[in-house]
Amino acid sequence: MTEYSSTLLENAVNELSRLPGIGKKTALRLALHLLREDGSRTEALARSLQQLREKIIFCRRCHNISDHEICAICSNPRRDEGLLCVVEDMRDVMAIERTASFHGLYHVLGGVINPVEGVSPNDLNINALIQRMKEESFREVIMALPATIEGDTTAYYLFRQISKENLKITSIAKGVAIGDALEYADEITLGRSILNRIPFESR
Amino acid sequence: MTEYSSTLLENAVNELSRLPGIGKKTALRLALHLLREDGSRTEALARSLQQLREKIIFCRRCHNISDHEICAICSNPRRDEGLLCVVEDMRDVMAIERTASFHGLYHVLGGVINPVEGVSPNDLNINALIQRMKEESFREVIMALPATIEGDTTAYYLFRQISKENLKITSIAKGVAIGDALEYADEITLGRSILNRIPFESR
Repeated sequence: MTEYSSTLLENAVNELSRLPGIGKKTALRLALHLLREDGSRTEALARSLQQLREKIIFCRRCHNISDHEICAICSNPRRDEGLLCVVEDMRDVMAIERTASFHGLYHVLGGVINPVEGVSPNDLNINALIQRMKEESFREVIMALPATIEGDTTAYYLFRQISKENLKITSIAKGVAIGDALEYADEITLGRSILNRIPFESR
Repeated sequence: MTEYSSTLLENAVNELSRLPGIGKKTALRLALHLLREDGSRTEALARSLQQLREKIIFCRRCHNISDHEICAICSNPRRDEGLLCVVEDMRDVMAIERTASFHGLYHVLGGVINPVEGVSPNDLNINALIQRMKEESFREVIMALPATIEGDTTAYYLFRQISKENLKITSIAKGVAIGDALEYADEITLGRSILNRIPFESR
């Protein structure tokens, strides 16, 4: 007899607990919840995951998740085609789109270089980015990568791969969050925001 | 264009976020994780959930989740058939089994009476319990229900349904947790543990 008194339940718990941030206890709670609900709910959940995995399309140009071969942003004629923003994944695209302060195009890497977790440049959409740099004509590439060692490493790696004459390569500003009191900012962030201070008039 | 730039992704996020404790942000994180992993992982997860829902067996006697018509506990000849423990769900069975201090049988209600969430006695395995009280011969029924208003209501409801001569009906002790300092116990728990104090020699 398994701890879960049913091998079907044990399988479901094991599979659910492979998801990030879901432990065995949460997995069991989820499985029992599905058992209590109507069977059609489980069917809808399972099918939506299968369809997602089988039929998902990544935009051929920016590699963002899309319903079409070329995504809605890449095919929008009103976007600035000279400006490219390089991000880790589609959540960053969503976050930047919500700010409504960027009107260029994106390039989704699908991760950042992380030797500890075995993510090398070849696992990311970096070759596709290098190809885009040849085919399209950007005047500026903005690195909007996470403010972590891995993000910085990836930005530096890309910088060395794509820098050329007449191309401006920038990075999003990192510093004290708007509305935050200085005393609550961590020391590294505060230190960087002093080092990277900007002239008063350019605000 | 949806916020998620793909209706497949949106469907998966919607279905995942119907699970208890999973919001849209977590659902998106889980969906993107599945997209990054090998497709066979998603397939295994989806199939394990479908199989769980389609093929799960509930023990005919105690209504616990089981691999067989009669579960391993109910069919174990070494369990005390005169002692019945009534619990909310299988997690409680697992928790009590881990204590190794109970050797009787269980009856799994599948929930507790909760008018606010629309759970009435008919939604629970209460008729089956009343039937068992007629068919089997228990000398004691232990109510091991949650220490909440709903748990207490359910226990009282069951008490009125099943009490009869020569049947002892008890409730698990509720009080200060073993190892806890009194100052950290909440007032209601501490108050109850004083009201329900037990003679020193019976410890």
